[in-house]
Amino acid sequence: MITIDVNVKNSPYKIYLGENILSLIGSELQKLKASSALIVTNTTVGPLYEEQISNICNAVVRTESVRLPDGEAYKNWDSVLMILNKLAGMKADRKSVVIALGGGVVGDLAGFAASIYMRGIRFIQVPTTLLAQVDSSVGGKTGMNMPYGKNMVGSFHQPSVVIADSNVLRTLPAREISAGLGEIIKHGMLADKDYFAELEAKMEQLRELEAEEIAKIVAGSCRIKSAVVSEDEKEAGRRACLNLGHTFGHAIEKLTGYGTWLHGEAVGCGLLLAAQTGRKLGKVSEEEVNKVELLLKRANLPTRIEGLSIDDAIEAMRGDKKSTSGVIHFVLMDGLGKSYVSEVPEEIIREVLLEGGYKP
Amino acid sequence: MITIDVNVKNSPYKIYLGENILSLIGSELQKLKASSALIVTNTTVGPLYEEQISNICNAVVRTESVRLPDGEAYKNWDSVLMILNKLAGMKADRKSVVIALGGGVVGDLAGFAASIYMRGIRFIQVPTTLLAQVDSSVGGKTGMNMPYGKNMVGSFHQPSVVIADSNVLRTLPAREISAGLGEIIKHGMLADKDYFAELEAKMEQLRELEAEEIAKIVAGSCRIKSAVVSEDEKEAGRRACLNLGHTFGHAIEKLTGYGTWLHGEAVGCGLLLAAQTGRKLGKVSEEEVNKVELLLKRANLPTRIEGLSIDDAIEAMRGDKKSTSGVIHFVLMDGLGKSYVSEVPEEIIREVLLEGGYKP
Repeated sequence: MITIDVNVKNSPYKIYLGENILSLIGSELQKLKASSALIVTNTTVGPLYEEQISNICNAVVRTESVRLPDGEAYKNWDSVLMILNKLAGMKADRKSVVIALGGGVVGDLAGFAASIYMRGIRFIQVPTTLLAQVDSSVGGKTGMNMPYGKNMVGSFHQPSVVIADSNVLRTLPAREISAGLGEIIKHGMLADKDYFAELEAKMEQLRELEAEEIAKIVAGSCRIKSAVVSEDEKEAGRRACLNLGHTFGHAIEKLTGYGTWLHGEAVGCGLLLAAQTGRKLGKVSEEEVNKVELLLKRANLPTRIEGLSIDDAIEAMRGDKKSTSGVIHFVLMDGLGKSYVSEVPEEIIREVLLEGGYKP
Repeated sequence: MITIDVNVKNSPYKIYLGENILSLIGSELQKLKASSALIVTNTTVGPLYEEQISNICNAVVRTESVRLPDGEAYKNWDSVLMILNKLAGMKADRKSVVIALGGGVVGDLAGFAASIYMRGIRFIQVPTTLLAQVDSSVGGKTGMNMPYGKNMVGSFHQPSVVIADSNVLRTLPAREISAGLGEIIKHGMLADKDYFAELEAKMEQLRELEAEEIAKIVAGSCRIKSAVVSEDEKEAGRRACLNLGHTFGHAIEKLTGYGTWLHGEAVGCGLLLAAQTGRKLGKVSEEEVNKVELLLKRANLPTRIEGLSIDDAIEAMRGDKKSTSGVIHFVLMDGLGKSYVSEVPEEIIREVLLEGGYKP
């Protein structure tokens, strides 16, 4: 088992990574002196793991569960309300603990509900997708979508502990594995050239979910992300770099309708667009762009989306949370393994989108 | 003008108290480098002050406003959503500032919406009731009611600054003044015997809103509260004492239907019940109970509620946020000016309620 310490100010926590470690949930609930627990999961993950985890938890403390409908389309207030109502119904109090069992959507919704129920109770992340293991379990971001944008409402709320079991990844569809690899590639691009090279060396083993390799790579991504997050919990500066590819990616998710593309797929596309923007600005070489494109393809991720409107994309990106006073800020690479935030002239973005398959 | 520094860890802020100080909002928006501002008010306060404040703000930055329906009954998600939708509609970004112009309900709703829009933007409190000036503007608690309890959903989110103008209190109905005096009396009871004595000396001047006296007393209450809050921002220990009278009070509000009794009125009643509980436990003298009762009456507050069911009250108090694992914790006085938190045997609570006019 690998243990990672996430040293967020005021609320440090640990990530446990390894095979067959779900039973840790019981001892963690004990350490937290939980008065009761609620497992939040969805209709896809629930049938696979809810009973097992419910038994582990109930041996320690009274535990109930709630199953949300599956998918980004349900990442909304109705789902948050299902969790809040369940907590109230079971008379959860300030010492109760929410257990998020599922992917990023379940984690974000459960974390958000936990952050606002009685002004904040504790929660444990049990991420069951590769994307959630490397991404949403580190950083304390919670949230839900609104008709006008993704994650437009949410909070910063750190989990008490994250338990990332690599066994549970085996039940994932291949498309979900690729989506997770998208975020993993992002971490290499924005912060660590050597990590990127490791991915180039092992991409096929990762797609096959070879246990030892996947655990090491997930740990590497968590370390990169937690180093950035520890520096800047509230996204005042450095942390923004984790959004490499996301301004483009969010626009794709919005314009295609949330849920059509997986988040990691949209980000995959966004990463190549970000690399190409860097090339136009003279910060990224042609060779580096090609490396990024090749690795994304080896991860079986889409790298191009045809036919979206450039104007619609620009409009969607202006509404993004990273945008201030209508100016669009992008996270850009300064060569492979380094990143920074900058305004980009709209003309350059339009060129990149046009070459990327968008229509004028 | 009186200035109070609230030294909350990570987000210290100032409270300005005095006559005719609303124009400060403009310079504060400038200091905050706000990209835009949204005035959140209600249908009662809006017609009185919104235009004036809108002019002050628009001289500095693009400012819009939203009027919520007035009253505790609208302290719900629909109102929060009105604010969030307005923010999204005006393309508010992470540098936008919410201005809460109104009483406690407006402050709690606007603060909550600000805390979750884009995972948190800044807000300014402009409290227009006596209660809000002494209570909800200090402490960073935000929230909304749910069908199963008051403030069951919310967050901790500190304002960037509080501007408490004593002139605006003159348009308040007498009942609202009394409700504010309830919280003021509470501060004396829980933390400061001398402050309590000052209230005994000046109650009539306070009810008449004599400017100089009211400013001094509001400042005194803010200092007491901010000293407690600075010690314990997240309500782990000491801060709980600010809930003196509130476990009883919340049950009254719930059983009579939110909005029937003003919060400060229910707390007034709760304060006497808390004092009487202390007497039963040998911590408060008969004379002190009488002093509390007399001062509440001079503030023109109700001290007794007839006919509520003891069983219903116990049930409601068990669901209170201060309750853990079904045991009811009460804030109690250890003589006038001192307070502590303790479990109380249900039998004692039942006796107190019975003598207080509740029915078996």
